[in-house]
Amino acid sequence: MNFPRQIQNLIEAFERLPGVGPKTAERLTFYLLHVPDTEIKKFGEAVAGLKSGIVLCRICKNVSETEVCAICGDSKRDQSTICVVENPLDVFSLEKTGKFGGVYHVLHGVINPLENIGPEELYIQDLIKRLEVRGERLEIKEVILALNPTMEGEATAMFLTKQIRNEQSPMSNKEKFTITRLGVGMPMGGDVQYADETTLGRALEGRRTYE
Amino acid sequence: MNFPRQIQNLIEAFERLPGVGPKTAERLTFYLLHVPDTEIKKFGEAVAGLKSGIVLCRICKNVSETEVCAICGDSKRDQSTICVVENPLDVFSLEKTGKFGGVYHVLHGVINPLENIGPEELYIQDLIKRLEVRGERLEIKEVILALNPTMEGEATAMFLTKQIRNEQSPMSNKEKFTITRLGVGMPMGGDVQYADETTLGRALEGRRTYE
Repeated sequence: MNFPRQIQNLIEAFERLPGVGPKTAERLTFYLLHVPDTEIKKFGEAVAGLKSGIVLCRICKNVSETEVCAICGDSKRDQSTICVVENPLDVFSLEKTGKFGGVYHVLHGVINPLENIGPEELYIQDLIKRLEVRGERLEIKEVILALNPTMEGEATAMFLTKQIRNEQSPMSNKEKFTITRLGVGMPMGGDVQYADETTLGRALEGRRTYE
Repeated sequence: MNFPRQIQNLIEAFERLPGVGPKTAERLTFYLLHVPDTEIKKFGEAVAGLKSGIVLCRICKNVSETEVCAICGDSKRDQSTICVVENPLDVFSLEKTGKFGGVYHVLHGVINPLENIGPEELYIQDLIKRLEVRGERLEIKEVILALNPTMEGEATAMFLTKQIRNEQSPMSNKEKFTITRLGVGMPMGGDVQYADETTLGRALEGRRTYE
C-alpha cells in the first residue's frame, strides 16, 4: 500500500533535507495535512520564493538583497579587518555577539576532499583578490580566520594562511596585516570533567590572566 | 542584523513544524539556498499541492485520493473487522506488517484534555454510526482498538469501549462483536534489563505458551 501521490511527493522532498529521515519526513507531512490551507500556501510560497531577490554580496559573498550587502556598504564598519567564515549563518552568529565591527568574507564551505570540495568550489580566490586589491589601496590590518575548529576547518585555515602569505610576498606591503584565528577553549557553561582532551588542552594553552 | 526577508520567511515557516527549533529551521533554510532552483521549485510545489486532491475516505476517514479509499473499496478485505487507529500513518504501519486483512477507522487524534481535544474533535461519532449501521446490515465481528499505549491512547480506548457498549445495548445484535486491543509487551530487539516496569509487567501478564 502506498501513500497518495501528493503525500509521497512531500515526504520525498522532506527526506532530501539534511538530518531528516523517512520517519520525520512522514511525520512532518502528516502534520501539514492538519494545517489550514492558508498556512500551507504560505509555507509553499516561502519555499518557492526563497531565492528570488537573494544574491551573494559582490564583496563578501554573504547572502544579501542588494549587490553590496548592508555590512560591506556600512561606512562605519572597519573595512581593514576581515573575518573569514564558513557560511552565512556564522556571520549572523558573530553579529549577535556585538563584538565585531569589521567586515566579513563568506567561503560557503570548507575544503573537504571526502566530499569532493576543493579550494575552487569555495570563494577563496575572491578573498585573495580582495586582499590583493585592498592591500594596495587600503590598509588591511587583520584577517580573522573564524572557521570551525574541526579537521576540515583547520585544514582550510592552514591552506588560506599559505595562500595569503604567498600573495603577500610579491606585494609592496608585505606582511602588513596579521592573520588570527578564534580562541579555542572551554565553552561558557561547559564542564571541565566532560570536556574533551583537545579542547581542554587548548584551553590551558590559551589561558589568560585574571583581569 | 536581520536575515533577508525571504530567508526569514522560510525560517519562520520551518519553525512552525513540530520538532523543528530555531537552529534547525535556520540550518534547513540555508541548506536550501545551495540547492538548485529546480529542486526548490519542486519542493515548493510539493508543499503547496499537498492537499489538492486529498480527501478523507467517506467510510474510514483515512487520507485518500478517492471518495472511498482503496482499502474500504477492496471487496477482498474483511469488512467485519475494524481496526481503530489514531492517525493515517498508523494505517500505513499496520499495512506494512501484512498481518491485517480487515478495514480501518482513523480517529485523527486522541482525547487530550490538556490540548483541548475532546471526543467531538475526533471521528468518534463516525465510528459509532458506522458500527450501528453495520450492526444491522452486516456482521461486525471485531473492533480492534489499535491506539498508542499512552495515557491519552488508553483513556480514548476506555471512552470508545464505553460508547460502543452503550450503542450496542439497544440494538438487536447486542454484544455481537468483541472489542480487542493490541498486545503490550517487549518490543522485538528490546532488552529486558532496560524495559520500563509497566511494559515488563504487561509482557508478563500477556505471556504466551511456546508454540
